[in-house]
Amino acid sequence: MKVIDLNCDMGESFGHYKIGCDEEVINYISSANIACGFHAGDPQVMDYTVKLARDNKVGVGAHPGFNDLQGFGRRKIHMTGEEIVNELIYQIGAIRSFCEANGVGLSHVKPHGALNNMASVDENLARAVAKAIKLTDPNLIYIALAGSKMEQIGREEGLKVAKEAFADRQYNPDGTLVSRQEAGAVLHDKETIIERVVQMASEGVVTAKDGTKLNINPDTICVHGDNPEAVELAASIRHMLQEHGITVKSLGTWFTG
Amino acid sequence: MKVIDLNCDMGESFGHYKIGCDEEVINYISSANIACGFHAGDPQVMDYTVKLARDNKVGVGAHPGFNDLQGFGRRKIHMTGEEIVNELIYQIGAIRSFCEANGVGLSHVKPHGALNNMASVDENLARAVAKAIKLTDPNLIYIALAGSKMEQIGREEGLKVAKEAFADRQYNPDGTLVSRQEAGAVLHDKETIIERVVQMASEGVVTAKDGTKLNINPDTICVHGDNPEAVELAASIRHMLQEHGITVKSLGTWFTG
Amino acid sequence: MKVIDLNCDMGESFGHYKIGCDEEVINYISSANIACGFHAGDPQVMDYTVKLARDNKVGVGAHPGFNDLQGFGRRKIHMTGEEIVNELIYQIGAIRSFCEANGVGLSHVKPHGALNNMASVDENLARAVAKAIKLTDPNLIYIALAGSKMEQIGREEGLKVAKEAFADRQYNPDGTLVSRQEAGAVLHDKETIIERVVQMASEGVVTAKDGTKLNINPDTICVHGDNPEAVELAASIRHMLQEHGITVKSLGTWFTG
Amino acid sequence: MKVIDLNCDMGESFGHYKIGCDEEVINYISSANIACGFHAGDPQVMDYTVKLARDNKVGVGAHPGFNDLQGFGRRKIHMTGEEIVNELIYQIGAIRSFCEANGVGLSHVKPHGALNNMASVDENLARAVAKAIKLTDPNLIYIALAGSKMEQIGREEGLKVAKEAFADRQYNPDGTLVSRQEAGAVLHDKETIIERVVQMASEGVVTAKDGTKLNINPDTICVHGDNPEAVELAASIRHMLQEHGITVKSLGTWFTG
Repeated sequence: MKVIDLNCDMGESFGHYKIGCDEEVINYISSANIACGFHAGDPQVMDYTVKLARDNKVGVGAHPGFNDLQGFGRRKIHMTGEEIVNELIYQIGAIRSFCEANGVGLSHVKPHGALNNMASVDENLARAVAKAIKLTDPNLIYIALAGSKMEQIGREEGLKVAKEAFADRQYNPDGTLVSRQEAGAVLHDKETIIERVVQMASEGVVTAKDGTKLNINPDTICVHGDNPEAVELAASIRHMLQEHGITVKSLGTWFTG
Repeated sequence: MKVIDLNCDMGESFGHYKIGCDEEVINYISSANIACGFHAGDPQVMDYTVKLARDNKVGVGAHPGFNDLQGFGRRKIHMTGEEIVNELIYQIGAIRSFCEANGVGLSHVKPHGALNNMASVDENLARAVAKAIKLTDPNLIYIALAGSKMEQIGREEGLKVAKEAFADRQYNPDGTLVSRQEAGAVLHDKETIIERVVQMASEGVVTAKDGTKLNINPDTICVHGDNPEAVELAASIRHMLQEHGITVKSLGTWFTG
Repeated sequence: MKVIDLNCDMGESFGHYKIGCDEEVINYISSANIACGFHAGDPQVMDYTVKLARDNKVGVGAHPGFNDLQGFGRRKIHMTGEEIVNELIYQIGAIRSFCEANGVGLSHVKPHGALNNMASVDENLARAVAKAIKLTDPNLIYIALAGSKMEQIGREEGLKVAKEAFADRQYNPDGTLVSRQEAGAVLHDKETIIERVVQMASEGVVTAKDGTKLNINPDTICVHGDNPEAVELAASIRHMLQEHGITVKSLGTWFTG
Repeated sequence: MKVIDLNCDMGESFGHYKIGCDEEVINYISSANIACGFHAGDPQVMDYTVKLARDNKVGVGAHPGFNDLQGFGRRKIHMTGEEIVNELIYQIGAIRSFCEANGVGLSHVKPHGALNNMASVDENLARAVAKAIKLTDPNLIYIALAGSKMEQIGREEGLKVAKEAFADRQYNPDGTLVSRQEAGAVLHDKETIIERVVQMASEGVVTAKDGTKLNINPDTICVHGDNPEAVELAASIRHMLQEHGITVKSLGTWFTG
């Protein structure tokens, strides 16, 4: 029986500012990537979100990013690999502390935004993320874009690497994501997205923008919970996966690396 | 044989900004209270300071404060107890992560600045600190001003509470510290300070400003490393304690609560 | 003919975080208090909001607060009067710069949240706000709670002080606002609020919680735009004021102090 | 008679953190580039530093940078040109407010660190800086590396552009600065530096690392005040310029663009 994880970024509210329909989308996903207070989130939000994931039996992961609340972690910031290691040790430790306080384990690490994009193509940054994971807990699963430098370096460093695919992103023939700067980078048609996700999960294949079939074999697929439409889409994705006999389960319960 | 701990706030540099003679004072103390990135410190500084303490066989503690870098955590900020709990779970988790990455244990928690002052007299805040310790690791030692609400509540909550005394602060007859707003709150005469510390450590007694003898029985005495004079004083204190047959050792090696 | 100003806090979004229905409520108010990047707002939001106010012919004011984004400026923070002066010179200068860049004048200053509450009862802080106004531009109107220390000190310092009333807040018999900590502090019944506003504007009177009639004679009344209901209420308030022959106009066009 | 300006970055302390010998170097320079609270500085420091410059009859300029205190504005951060315009309108307005509060004019704008480096070679960013100057005060002098995109775009935009040279930096044959990543980028020999400055000021020429003579004709030369040695060097530079009949005067008193 085929099993897949559905992951979603969560806990990205801050102080009086609210982003995301976390309480809704939590019903359809199996892994929550929780912001750690740098690009989003704060101690109150982190505690709340860890409890929300725990109560919904959703796996909890660290979602560390650049320390750039104004840019929501989406601005490229140039730091050394050594700096990145420490920025991540800090953030992973912070979210893990809320996990321990709430009696739940930390299962995975997925970098956020610009850090994720940069580390996908930069060996030095990909290794910094891997090193931070090894130093904090080598059993943490490293969620990495399938085919990226993160996947490659994560394996080199002996980590459990879960390959990630994106439900709503267009792919280049080489397996990289089409840049958000380009038209058509993000898919919007609901039926198309659902169909792609089912194909990713059942056959391990995604069709690139030129028609090339890419064997990405994802372990986890990223969905969104930013708005009611995104939540509805996540619900449909989950439903259709089940219709196709694919079980949605959090990585920690089945993934062995 | 009499044993005492000497603690000092450390790791309070930030980015390109340097504060404190950490590399010097580390030679004379037994416990380092390391800033956690809120009132001071950053991930690079935290990693460096944990390594410095480890290499000098000095106990590592969390030194959490208000999230107020500009005010260095010395401004009173009004937050709820629940908020304080989460602010501390976050900070304790962050510093503990550097401890684990560097193969050293976290021994204690000592609140910083305004948070320490406020929690010393406010039961609600004192309990928030205690609760954060219990939720992260109930074996952590809670360093609390001798006779304060923190000491009382810490014991009520079943924690190991180490009573703290201040080498260079004047005391009121009721055991509280003379406010820094009052003249004479901080002692400056080196000989006086050393003599008081020896008396605190050997007899458990400190003389209040009106001459009252207070039985504070400290487990740990706070010294400073802000400048070369402070370091010299710390060195003299350590030397004189040894001259009087008092061993300076980190709490984690002998303190049982 | 009776004239009154309706003011509303605006520009409180930050980065990817959106708060407030600014584009809606702007249609019903005459003065916008624009956040200056400390408790809320950022340079992009400030530029956008100044343009929005300009295009809707609404007066622009500075809405400075404590540097506390996480607490949205609602946490009491203890700073010296001298520090407050500089915090406000900074923020007033920043928002004024966007006014100049967009060809619009800055008309007033209204402190935000905890700073406003603290300065209403603390002479030292009230004077710090007044001093900041005098140092940046003594022609700026100081919006102050009617009967507060801010009103008193603002006049002593020779400033133009506009007396403010709150549409939805309950008053104590001494003219102070009932604390938000107390039940009934904020009124929710739409009809009651509208009626009170009309009475404030037409007779200068508000009824305190014990029935006392207070002569507050407001120059400006604070309304909200946080959510669709608040906007609807603001629209009704404006409509009813006009029904009663009261003209809503921004302070800068008629207020002489 | 030859006239030159000596500029220095100042006001880069923050809260309890002190950087720079501002009170010393102020004696030898003619223009102070004052940090605006983003990469360094805070409202208290800004007020203090503006007063210091005023009392020493040194011209005051804005020294805006990326909003990155931890990186001291030296990390490259990718933002759009429009965002940069607003980040600068904000910072220029903030420092100008302290100028007005202290009865002194704002004379120039010099971007800091990574922003300066990036805008020197990127037309889009160079134009963003120019646009911010035009929108806040088109009479402000734009200090730009001689031969950079900033110089070119500043002129295109009709601004007064003062060409800057660096006392202690090695030049490439094309007029760009040797990157700090390369060995020998920063000169350390005091005599060499002084000699180069005199040549820059008297003949308008600097020798690149391959021996090429570059005609840079600087209007202002950047010196440092970070430490006692830097101050001593600044003093020697000023002395030697005067020995060679070159007058050191702030741009605002003689520069016409």
